[in-house]
Amino acid sequence: KGAILRDMAPHLPAGVHFVPAHPVAGTENSGPDAGFAELFVERWCILTPPSGAEPAAVERLAAFWRLLGAKVEIMSAEHHDLVLGITSHLPHLIAYTIVGTADELSQVTRSEVLQFSAGGFRDFTRIAASDPTMWRDVFLANKEAVLEMLGRFNEDLATLTRAIRRGDGETLFNQFSRTRAIRRAIVEIGQDSAAPDFGRPHPELPDVPLPRPYAAED
Amino acid sequence: KGAILRDMAPHLPAGVHFVPAHPVAGTENSGPDAGFAELFVERWCILTPPSGAEPAAVERLAAFWRLLGAKVEIMSAEHHDLVLGITSHLPHLIAYTIVGTADELSQVTRSEVLQFSAGGFRDFTRIAASDPTMWRDVFLANKEAVLEMLGRFNEDLATLTRAIRRGDGETLFNQFSRTRAIRRAIVEIGQDSAAPDFGRPHPELPDVPLPRPYAAED
Repeated sequence: KGAILRDMAPHLPAGVHFVPAHPVAGTENSGPDAGFAELFVERWCILTPPSGAEPAAVERLAAFWRLLGAKVEIMSAEHHDLVLGITSHLPHLIAYTIVGTADELSQVTRSEVLQFSAGGFRDFTRIAASDPTMWRDVFLANKEAVLEMLGRFNEDLATLTRAIRRGDGETLFNQFSRTRAIRRAIVEIGQDSAAPDFGRPHPELPDVPLPRPYAAED
Repeated sequence: KGAILRDMAPHLPAGVHFVPAHPVAGTENSGPDAGFAELFVERWCILTPPSGAEPAAVERLAAFWRLLGAKVEIMSAEHHDLVLGITSHLPHLIAYTIVGTADELSQVTRSEVLQFSAGGFRDFTRIAASDPTMWRDVFLANKEAVLEMLGRFNEDLATLTRAIRRGDGETLFNQFSRTRAIRRAIVEIGQDSAAPDFGRPHPELPDVPLPRPYAAED
């Protein structure tokens, strides 16, 4: 949002209030046909009014988003860019990277990657299926914050890599225990479903019951 | 599976057939209570019989897994470790890393990370909520393959990082377009749901309809 405010400022006629808004909601699909009535319900929308923005204009926009079911938070464009850098831009970059890495391996075929993707990989492919034009522009416009977050991520990845190389199970266990609490907190505040596997639909059981040679009643 | 075969070999009595199996199915939850009837339906189960394994024993196990609804694939333990390194172990390590990184930032509070997690981050938290003991042991047992995949991933991440730093939109766009095809292929072969956002349940619309000041009929 910092880059947008900078680029727009010289073109704003007097009396026009420019208040960028970012609803943190959506799916991997884009365009009007991808919308649905509940899209913004219980999701946060961030407003980033420039300093000196007219409070009445900001409040009018906030009311608009609340009518769509969203919750509104106001912060500076700079802070928005950092927050989204870690909660959205870095995750997208990582997902795009790992899906590309898997596709280019010589030891593992593409069909194996697809077949066995239920082991974790397929989660990353959803995000890596997001609109390429929009995401190219996001990374070019929010370069500084993304590079900053990337630096932190690389440091942390190096720490875990070293622990694996040295066989340091304690460091791995401690890190893996800590991250569980974050998931729980996100579900508790209603920002994700508590259903296992995101509530993904499962293939159904076959119509004809399977033979049960090992069943208790045998 | 390589480490398991090596460690078990000296302890196997004559006449015992040891055929490791890995059903690529599950959720972020562990233990018997996390199971459900459809768990293995249409999922792949990998058998890694050691060289010289009795074909009849392998076929008996394969039949067992097919009765649970799974599809069976047979490969060497070494190849299994590479395939799972990229489709499961690397994704888990990356997810554990990024969730830890987000939690340790000084510029962004934990409550902001939770609030705005719908931007992509929350997807990673599901995997990072997996059982810490099991995952510690996975990384210690499959060290070589994981380190190999990590090396590839780091190279690819460096390429994208450089593109962002240089403002090279073309490289970004090309990578982001390629990864979309992988998602589509996974859905086509029935290894993930075609529903947007994994079919995640949405918070419902409020009972009382929202006022519609901007509606067409006004």
